[in-house]
Amino acid sequence: MNRRRRIYEGKAKILYEGPEPGTLVQHFKDDATAFNAKKHDVIDGKGVLNNRISEYIFQNLNDIGVPTHFLRRLNMREQLIREVEIIQLEVVVRNVAAGSLSTRLGIEEGTQLPRSIIEFYYKNDALGDPMVSEEHITAFGWASPQEIDDIMSLAIRVNDFLSGLFLGAGIRLVDFKMECGRLWENDMVRIVVADEISPDSCRLWDMKTNEKMDKDRFRRDLGGLVEAYSEVARRLGILTESDNPVAKSGPTLVKG
Amino acid sequence: MNRRRRIYEGKAKILYEGPEPGTLVQHFKDDATAFNAKKHDVIDGKGVLNNRISEYIFQNLNDIGVPTHFLRRLNMREQLIREVEIIQLEVVVRNVAAGSLSTRLGIEEGTQLPRSIIEFYYKNDALGDPMVSEEHITAFGWASPQEIDDIMSLAIRVNDFLSGLFLGAGIRLVDFKMECGRLWENDMVRIVVADEISPDSCRLWDMKTNEKMDKDRFRRDLGGLVEAYSEVARRLGILTESDNPVAKSGPTLVKG
Ligand SMILES: Nc1ncnc2c1ncn2[C@@H]1O[C@H](COP(=O)(O)OP(=O)(O)OP(=O)(O)O)[C@@H](O)[C@H]1O
Ligand SMILES: Nc1ncnc2c1ncn2[C@@H]1O[C@H](COP(=O)(O)OP(=O)(O)OP(=O)(O)O)[C@@H](O)[C@H]1O
Ligand SMILES: [Mg+2]
Ligand SMILES: [Mg+2]
Repeated sequence: MNRRRRIYEGKAKILYEGPEPGTLVQHFKDDATAFNAKKHDVIDGKGVLNNRISEYIFQNLNDIGVPTHFLRRLNMREQLIREVEIIQLEVVVRNVAAGSLSTRLGIEEGTQLPRSIIEFYYKNDALGDPMVSEEHITAFGWASPQEIDDIMSLAIRVNDFLSGLFLGAGIRLVDFKMECGRLWENDMVRIVVADEISPDSCRLWDMKTNEKMDKDRFRRDLGGLVEAYSEVARRLGILTESDNPVAKSGPTLVKG
Repeated sequence: MNRRRRIYEGKAKILYEGPEPGTLVQHFKDDATAFNAKKHDVIDGKGVLNNRISEYIFQNLNDIGVPTHFLRRLNMREQLIREVEIIQLEVVVRNVAAGSLSTRLGIEEGTQLPRSIIEFYYKNDALGDPMVSEEHITAFGWASPQEIDDIMSLAIRVNDFLSGLFLGAGIRLVDFKMECGRLWENDMVRIVVADEISPDSCRLWDMKTNEKMDKDRFRRDLGGLVEAYSEVARRLGILTESDNPVAKSGPTLVKG
């Protein structure tokens, strides 16, 4: 069954050749890493949850006209995506101070930012994903000025959508990371949202208790990661109320 | 004689109240600091040289129409400047990879950059002057988008002028730092170049030997700092050929 050609194995996902040219299968593993992979663990059920949450977000982005690489979910851990040329930038959108922004600029975690801030990090594990500005990006040709504009427009739309989505679920979207890629169609290239959007790549705080419902539970050794991700899925209406989020076989899903 | 009110004492300079409202006296000390003042030394004659080199550069910038805070030199260590509201950013222009850019982006020191790169650092010693992007600058209101545009235009003009000036003196301008300030005149505000431009704030490499003629001699314990700064001044035609750069009383100057 796994005779498919493996294109890339990353820290959290594997990419396989897809059934048709221009497609890939994105497989979500249970591996969790942090601090440039210096910290690593396997967390039973995480991949299944991220596959479902990311499907839900990308499908809804497609539906509101935000272009993404997502085609459809295939099974518990896999989704069919369009192959894109990944732009070597991590695009971070922040609404509330947390993490490295708090440390670098001395702003207490939890402080509402005066407005949303978009940051770029150069995707390079050997260098520890350093922060870069538009000047570096254009000088080194990682993206053109027009592409940066397109990426920032996408980032704002995704942030608007996610802020609303999570607000409706009683969750504060503190920040998130997204990746973009170039998609060729009939000799035209456009920028689409790629990779995943899940509690692994967002900071999500419960609106009432400020409890963390994201990968910071792993980074900061808080425990209860699968329970938190399940709760996110449940509030988004992906898991049924009665599901046991930590069942051996992974959480039961509403449909599929 | 020093009954003047001291406005500010920094690591390398002191600001005194000037003779007229809206003016200050900028006094160049011999102190050298690096790595956020963790390293400190007093280097006899440095202040005199920086006062003269910075005078020379700012006077020439004024003459070609690049607005600066500089009015005139007063004596060996002091110059008269216009008081401005300093914008809390260090503006770095890079032509060749060196220092933190090389470390952060993994580009060997000495590599010509594909084009000049402008970087912004938030002037805050407690935070170690972190790098920031236009997004942080505008979100936190450190400068407006229009002011950033003005600063970048000034930075490019200063870089063009300095590149030519040092090229003519057999010196490669690797990078430099500048500060800008808001100057009010008849209810109008405009951005001018402030602070100093000297071997303390530039990377200057001898065109033929690549020898460092700047503050890296101090940062990297290479010695011969005053000799190097004197050589820069000599090549710019500020010191006479016959001057002894390390004479007890400081270098003799062509004029003044
Ligand atoms: N549509 C797509 N087409 C091609 N590559 C993609 C697509 N979507 C995501 N990718 C890439 O697939 C990989 C997913 O694997 P994973 O996220 O585990 O990698 P990683 O270990 O985080 O490393 P990386 O630093 O490259 O993200 C990433 O490199 C990501 O950029
Ligand atoms: N025209 C001006 N008007 C007002 N302040 C000025 C002007 N030019 C320079 N300054 C400020 O004067 C100070 C010069 O002192 P110095 O360079 O020794 O400070 P420093 O220790 O480097 O600290 P800083 O981080 O503030 O630069 C700086 O704070 C600089 O921003
Ligand atoms: Mg990844
Ligand atoms: Mg200074």
